[in-house]
Amino acid sequence: MRAIDVSLGNRGYQIKIGTGLLGRLGRECAALGLGRRGVIISDRNVAPRFGPAARQALRQAGFECELLTVLAGETAKSLKTVRACYDQLAALRLERSSFILALGGGVVGDLAGFVAATYLRGIGFVQAPTTLLAQVDSSVGGKVGVNLKAGKNLVGAFYQPRLVLCDLETLASLPEREFRAGLAEVIKYGVIGDAGLFGRLERDLPALLRREPATLAAVVARCCQLKAQVVSQDETEGGLRAILNFGHTVGHALEAISRYGKFLHGEAIAIGQAAAASLSTRQLGLPQSQAARIQTLLERAGLPTRVSLNARQWEQLLSAMKLDKKVSGGEIRFVLAPRIGEARFGQEVPAAMIQQVLLQES
Amino acid sequence: MRAIDVSLGNRGYQIKIGTGLLGRLGRECAALGLGRRGVIISDRNVAPRFGPAARQALRQAGFECELLTVLAGETAKSLKTVRACYDQLAALRLERSSFILALGGGVVGDLAGFVAATYLRGIGFVQAPTTLLAQVDSSVGGKVGVNLKAGKNLVGAFYQPRLVLCDLETLASLPEREFRAGLAEVIKYGVIGDAGLFGRLERDLPALLRREPATLAAVVARCCQLKAQVVSQDETEGGLRAILNFGHTVGHALEAISRYGKFLHGEAIAIGQAAAASLSTRQLGLPQSQAARIQTLLERAGLPTRVSLNARQWEQLLSAMKLDKKVSGGEIRFVLAPRIGEARFGQEVPAAMIQQVLLQES
Repeated sequence: MRAIDVSLGNRGYQIKIGTGLLGRLGRECAALGLGRRGVIISDRNVAPRFGPAARQALRQAGFECELLTVLAGETAKSLKTVRACYDQLAALRLERSSFILALGGGVVGDLAGFVAATYLRGIGFVQAPTTLLAQVDSSVGGKVGVNLKAGKNLVGAFYQPRLVLCDLETLASLPEREFRAGLAEVIKYGVIGDAGLFGRLERDLPALLRREPATLAAVVARCCQLKAQVVSQDETEGGLRAILNFGHTVGHALEAISRYGKFLHGEAIAIGQAAAASLSTRQLGLPQSQAARIQTLLERAGLPTRVSLNARQWEQLLSAMKLDKKVSGGEIRFVLAPRIGEARFGQEVPAAMIQQVLLQES
Repeated sequence: MRAIDVSLGNRGYQIKIGTGLLGRLGRECAALGLGRRGVIISDRNVAPRFGPAARQALRQAGFECELLTVLAGETAKSLKTVRACYDQLAALRLERSSFILALGGGVVGDLAGFVAATYLRGIGFVQAPTTLLAQVDSSVGGKVGVNLKAGKNLVGAFYQPRLVLCDLETLASLPEREFRAGLAEVIKYGVIGDAGLFGRLERDLPALLRREPATLAAVVARCCQLKAQVVSQDETEGGLRAILNFGHTVGHALEAISRYGKFLHGEAIAIGQAAAASLSTRQLGLPQSQAARIQTLLERAGLPTRVSLNARQWEQLLSAMKLDKKVSGGEIRFVLAPRIGEARFGQEVPAAMIQQVLLQES
């Protein structure tokens, strides 16, 4: 088992990565000094597979534990589901010392985290991510929230978990499309912060796609380490943390205009990363050869890098980008990369250039 | 103008108390370095009266400013209203640097504060309380939230404002019933933390009821000072802060079972304080004479101190008390006073004794 510290003073915590960790869940939660009552929030895909084992592990350690199941998919990240969770927590008489365990992918983590952040003004929260995307990205760092019709993650909080437990065994049964979507975030870490990781991904992609345990463990741990470093320096995204959103400006907007139905998050940000790489060549002098390597790696991972938009869809996309949380003074800001392994946030890009890049690619 | 510091490190802020402060709103907000775009959230009673002046003051200082009006009364403190606010903020293209000004009583402050705490994971927040209750209590300290059907304030956050601006002129037009309800919280501060203030209230109640500016200014400032001291020591209610809930265990439950319709908050906690005083004589040796002084002062302020409950209503009340956020290990905990001017939190009281006290009083 590998353990990575997220250094945030009295809100600090560990990310634990290894195989068979769900079986240790009870002991791990007991060690945190959480109250006796916990609720597992999971979705209809994950709950039948891992819910009983997680509940069993918690009960064996002396916790009272119920399992709440929400719909699978991005539509569950809604205020409607939040309200349904609140009502059930009230019916279960949760107390301030009680805790919520998020068991599932990014959607479940973001939703359950927001519920934990706001129920009784904040109760304990533990992440047990079961997808690659959630393990390397969304479960770490405390960003929780839900979507509005107007845009993704427009409602939320910064609320740190007490522990992130990444059981690599849960990735074995992940559908191929979801696994590949997770690779989009993995590739992102290479682009924004570690040229060595990027090179390793180019080399080891076949092993990663076969989900070989040793490769997976090393890559997940490196991604978590990179994320933990960034989050420790800038918990609430005053600046630096924004680099984690490489590919997300276009990506989030694509998700919003397709009503979170057409693309998985990782697929949308793969397209966004290809666009950001193109913009980076124009704005920050990213060498064409490196932009091509980014695009090629995304494609080798089976991810989309292009989208075809008609004029009306482009207008919708532009409007959605203007709702992005990173907008400041009405200007759309991008994270761009001057070279693989380095990123700069807050880069203003004219709408016309974004349009040009997306049309060129479609 | 009096200014009181709420010392909370980088979340610290000032409470400013005086007459004509709404006219200074623009300058005050500009001094905080808030972004150019602000939204005033107010209710149908307050918005027509003070909305235009507040908006004018902000616009004169160079802010773009829209006014959102919600229904008046406790029913506005709902997830439904929160969602309506989110949708309007999205339509207005609010950014992370934007801010929300709460203009109104406790309901507006709690609602607007929760919206500010969660929109875009938290935007700027300024309180301009226009009721006595909000000025002395709910606008200070960062507790924000809304109600569920299952109970009051079950959903919320600790989210500090950047400034609290108490314009005493707004109290002149406050309906008598609401003003008296605010006095319940004023009296509470005397009971829990300042025997001198309690004595002053006994002496100056007639002047206070006539809303004499000098008396009002001194009393509001003293209450804010007491609250600021408690909040500085215990922002997130790990312990001490709970003393501010004297009278609230029964009070909140009464509000919940009457569906927030029958009692104003101050009225419900007046009944709760009378009950807590009675319990204090039994559990902590509060002299009968002091319990009588508390009851008498509440009554002189025109507040209810008794409620009549049938058996079914008592069961509902008990059930609602068990949902209270202060419950721990299933036990109902009260804030009790060993003498006027001192309070102890976390006091377990058997349900039978609560019932006895409430029946005796009804």
